[in-house]
Amino acid sequence: MINKLVSKIKKTEAPIVVGLDPMPGFIPEYILKESFDKYGQTPEGMADAFFEFNKGIIDAVCDLVPAVKPQIAMYEQLGLAGLAAFDMTVRYCKQKDLVVIGDVKRGDIGSTSAAYATGHLGKVKIGSGFFAGFDEDFATVNPYLGSDGIKPFVDVCREYKKGIFVLVKTSNPSSGEFQDREIDGKPLYEHVGEAVDKWGSELMGDDYSYVGAVVGATYPEMGKKLRGIMPKAYILVPGYGAQGGTGKDLAGFFDKDGLGAIVNSSRGIIAAWQKDPYKEKFSEREYADAARAAVLDMKEDINSAIL
Amino acid sequence: MINKLVSKIKKTEAPIVVGLDPMPGFIPEYILKESFDKYGQTPEGMADAFFEFNKGIIDAVCDLVPAVKPQIAMYEQLGLAGLAAFDMTVRYCKQKDLVVIGDVKRGDIGSTSAAYATGHLGKVKIGSGFFAGFDEDFATVNPYLGSDGIKPFVDVCREYKKGIFVLVKTSNPSSGEFQDREIDGKPLYEHVGEAVDKWGSELMGDDYSYVGAVVGATYPEMGKKLRGIMPKAYILVPGYGAQGGTGKDLAGFFDKDGLGAIVNSSRGIIAAWQKDPYKEKFSEREYADAARAAVLDMKEDINSAIL
Repeated sequence: MINKLVSKIKKTEAPIVVGLDPMPGFIPEYILKESFDKYGQTPEGMADAFFEFNKGIIDAVCDLVPAVKPQIAMYEQLGLAGLAAFDMTVRYCKQKDLVVIGDVKRGDIGSTSAAYATGHLGKVKIGSGFFAGFDEDFATVNPYLGSDGIKPFVDVCREYKKGIFVLVKTSNPSSGEFQDREIDGKPLYEHVGEAVDKWGSELMGDDYSYVGAVVGATYPEMGKKLRGIMPKAYILVPGYGAQGGTGKDLAGFFDKDGLGAIVNSSRGIIAAWQKDPYKEKFSEREYADAARAAVLDMKEDINSAIL
Repeated sequence: MINKLVSKIKKTEAPIVVGLDPMPGFIPEYILKESFDKYGQTPEGMADAFFEFNKGIIDAVCDLVPAVKPQIAMYEQLGLAGLAAFDMTVRYCKQKDLVVIGDVKRGDIGSTSAAYATGHLGKVKIGSGFFAGFDEDFATVNPYLGSDGIKPFVDVCREYKKGIFVLVKTSNPSSGEFQDREIDGKPLYEHVGEAVDKWGSELMGDDYSYVGAVVGATYPEMGKKLRGIMPKAYILVPGYGAQGGTGKDLAGFFDKDGLGAIVNSSRGIIAAWQKDPYKEKFSEREYADAARAAVLDMKEDINSAIL
């Protein structure tokens, strides 16, 4: 799957992933009304609105970008109805041949981590049959529990040709509270980066490993350092746009050929219709066109900085 | 909710939580057969078997223990059908007045962490209504992302009188890879323990905080140390039984009055019917009676060590 991701990035010339993180405030009134008319002002109604909203975005950007990243928390807050919308979103994206990165930040130990890996990337055996749960292509994973938490994911990735992105240095302001603390002369995130490099060396694709890393756009110097520490890891970069990262911050995350990193934007794209400069040009009913325009602008911003 | 947990621990004299982590291999054949007859050898069939199995355990132990801890990964591996069984299990336990600790190990930042907190502990607002997602009483949370990941949970806990247990020192063999690394003369887990104490000071119940901690039974010396660092945090202790922890390892996790910690056992109880000494006494159809016997033995083992 890492090979497919790299190949699609080359083809689209867009190292961009669209974060499908719907929030009620981002969704045009006419979509909410249609969904509420069908299902009432209920979790089912909101989940239907999430999916309809996503479909519009996906249709509008699927030829421009290699991948999408639905954030499962947004769906999970609606309980089962929301998770059904997450599942439908993953399936719809895969029909459109998009690579789906499930932003699930799971992590546990042993058989429990194996269960998460199975539910998101693999198949569960029941009787003589095998069944996929959510069936994303990649998942994000939390490293706090050490190798016991990561290895079961790596095993499932090997079997099903899927991949993971391990949290190394997250984009948020307080990420340094633990991640930046110095251990033997180096911050914790560098130690985690070294572990990612080691875990990933056991599961290589053509040029990059199936084990990638998450490093926030908001910490460009650290991104540059980590690029060197994990030469085979694709870096998933959140924090562009709404969180403050800009194209020029990103050069250090990439290799010389413009590969090696993929930058996420969520609300900067899916809620572009509400923001300058798009809100002047696009109406509520053109929210998907606004998203497409925002992707094209982001592509230009990033490529001008890295190529 | 921490007050209810403490009060139920006092009443039952059992600082024990039963881990509802069903695996297909733990479930008696006759339950699997009934479920597969109804739903086929499908995720729906296995999820039905999980729930029927859980009901038997819950009915058999609900007067003995204060709390249960369903591990969501086991359900999540079955996709939506499994999560429906998780939801039904949570509801059934609450009908029996058990405190439900959702072992979900979630953790993200800002609005995303808030969405997880809402989905598991709070209510989501849709139109003029409020809807609970999974509605556990407590959730386990991963601290790697720092305060930005924890604070949204604390806010939801304050509003809905729920609680969290933050991962501090986990029970697995490789937990030391990052958690034990020394920072300013102290291991990382002590720094996380200090943060738990600080986060928890903002949200106190009568004697303990709504913000608790997870510390593995497999590390008794560290448990004793952390007990002192986090005097107001209830400690959720995994790793007893199957993972190697015993009653005598546990004394240091508790305060002098026998409060302050609650010990989890999962397969040691729910799969007791397959293990010595219970398998001689109980048939497959008596799996729930075996679980009850295992709870009583565990209660004696722990109380003899701490009281």
